[in-house]
Amino acid sequence: MDEFASIHHWTDARQAAEWQRQRGVIIGIGDDAAVVDPAAAADGVAEPKRLLLAVDTMVETVHFNETTMRDEDVGYKALAANISDIAAMGGVPLHALVSVSVPPSYNPERMRRLYDGLYECAERYGVAVAGGDTTSSPQHLVVAVTVTGTVEAGRELRRSGAMPGDAVFVTGAVGMAAAGLHALLADAGLAGAASLVQAHRRPNPSVRAGRLLLERGTCRSLNDVSDGLASEAWEIAEASGLRLVLNEQLLPKSGSMAAYASQVHVDPLEWMLYGGEDYALLGTMAAEDVEAMQAAFRQEGIPFFVIGETEAGLPGVELICNEQAYQGKGSGSRPVKRAALSKRGYNHFST
Amino acid sequence: MDEFASIHHWTDARQAAEWQRQRGVIIGIGDDAAVVDPAAAADGVAEPKRLLLAVDTMVETVHFNETTMRDEDVGYKALAANISDIAAMGGVPLHALVSVSVPPSYNPERMRRLYDGLYECAERYGVAVAGGDTTSSPQHLVVAVTVTGTVEAGRELRRSGAMPGDAVFVTGAVGMAAAGLHALLADAGLAGAASLVQAHRRPNPSVRAGRLLLERGTCRSLNDVSDGLASEAWEIAEASGLRLVLNEQLLPKSGSMAAYASQVHVDPLEWMLYGGEDYALLGTMAAEDVEAMQAAFRQEGIPFFVIGETEAGLPGVELICNEQAYQGKGSGSRPVKRAALSKRGYNHFST
Repeated sequence: MDEFASIHHWTDARQAAEWQRQRGVIIGIGDDAAVVDPAAAADGVAEPKRLLLAVDTMVETVHFNETTMRDEDVGYKALAANISDIAAMGGVPLHALVSVSVPPSYNPERMRRLYDGLYECAERYGVAVAGGDTTSSPQHLVVAVTVTGTVEAGRELRRSGAMPGDAVFVTGAVGMAAAGLHALLADAGLAGAASLVQAHRRPNPSVRAGRLLLERGTCRSLNDVSDGLASEAWEIAEASGLRLVLNEQLLPKSGSMAAYASQVHVDPLEWMLYGGEDYALLGTMAAEDVEAMQAAFRQEGIPFFVIGETEAGLPGVELICNEQAYQGKGSGSRPVKRAALSKRGYNHFST
Repeated sequence: MDEFASIHHWTDARQAAEWQRQRGVIIGIGDDAAVVDPAAAADGVAEPKRLLLAVDTMVETVHFNETTMRDEDVGYKALAANISDIAAMGGVPLHALVSVSVPPSYNPERMRRLYDGLYECAERYGVAVAGGDTTSSPQHLVVAVTVTGTVEAGRELRRSGAMPGDAVFVTGAVGMAAAGLHALLADAGLAGAASLVQAHRRPNPSVRAGRLLLERGTCRSLNDVSDGLASEAWEIAEASGLRLVLNEQLLPKSGSMAAYASQVHVDPLEWMLYGGEDYALLGTMAAEDVEAMQAAFRQEGIPFFVIGETEAGLPGVELICNEQAYQGKGSGSRPVKRAALSKRGYNHFST
């Protein structure tokens, strides 16, 4: 226990004082509480800000194990998942507080690697690690990360703002992380699955995409795809009180995922709809601004896919699919089917 | 897992919208992140504020078990320990984010009780529960709570500000929580130990004491007694670069603790110095303001004990004790002994 009694062991000298100061950290790790001034985070924008707060937890054997994640990945992903929650509000992440409960199986070297990954993610996304708590744990590692961020007052992107006739979009391919997890668990040779494994272990929260969406002012609802596309679409449908109708043929399918799915005889649609942890952003926006939004995303090299539209009606999510195409028998002008998608989310170890 | 998939189950309708609004909560639980405006927390003070951030974690079998804590107590104490960190900076607690990892042994009824206790503490201290995350856990309950607070910019009470010649004070009796834990573990009949058990299970973070200390402007360093008086005194000594000299006869000893100690043949000084989780505030202040500070505390009915002073010198903590008195042989003008106190903190289950 004593070895883990202080988070100092893992955090000392990891971030320069100036890096922290630029993010509004007045007092970082080392006192009872961190003292921060979010308004002092130099972003050159005078618009009044609000504070965003999010917490996300990763538990060994529930969200990861030694087969699926290296220690560095656990640290990286624990922070990345939280940054994604800030991105999904259109915000800029600022500070992180890290609670780690350390079982005997994690020696100091493993803990160092975990923090290596966490600080790598912090550096990439400009986050100051401002506080934390380290305790021992009887058996399993638990990492709970809290992140703060800022967002322009009144412009935060909620789940509840969708309106009938909106375009539904997603800012990246879906299903890759779930395919990567499948590859890790199947242990079937990972030669062709490297990018999928990377998607599972090192997700890219979509901070810049969230900012673009907020800046244009035409995004009406937003969520991050942490629990799978269908589940996240349901959250928007229920919060906004309408129906999302997605088009199967418009869902962004990565080539590597399709190839791997074919190799292991899995229908990739399952991963795309119900796989989680892609951390792309799913949302709805004013249909008349789609072209301009696409251009704005193109200019920054960020993917943007329109995948359906919203309709007035009881909350729900439907998928338009061409049955024959769905069964892999080629395309053609065959009858189109609308299938209701269930709400079920992502269970890490039941793929 | 599905049963615990959303923190909604445990938090819906627990706090009125107006209660949350008064604490600056714009969007609470239910979106990707909470949106808060700490400046909007109505406190009638125009002085510029900074934000305080603290996280604290409780792990089943490490910090509590079914013998020592009821489910309600776990929830209450998890939040109270964090509020104490805000108090130890002189701040006002505002928001909490709650991460709970739930093992199979916690059914919905137990979880309801845990949140009952947490919300009871939130109500007592005016904290808005603004976010959270609920995951499953393979075996042990883990509760990580993050708390925000505000403090007047530049007036936060750190560990590092003590100066030679300061008076050392503590704002409550010490050792009661450790004695309560002893009573719970000894299972020796708890008739006389009810107030000690209560001290262990339902600590009182010292928010009002912290505000008084900040308001007078003469408090130079502050810590909360979470890990035991000696350990916390060491933290101030090391952060401030000086020596704290405590006087055994000035340490506030509760009558119920002394009686129980005598009953079970334990030296109460052990609990007072090395027992933890009392959550009184330990600090140093300008000696010339002690009388006025005492009067201010008296007026609000909050305990305040001067227990020693600071000296220039290598960082360390010493205890002045009258050896005979210490051995229970009565007092008298016998030689005084200065003993160095070790840094060792509090281990929950090794009393």
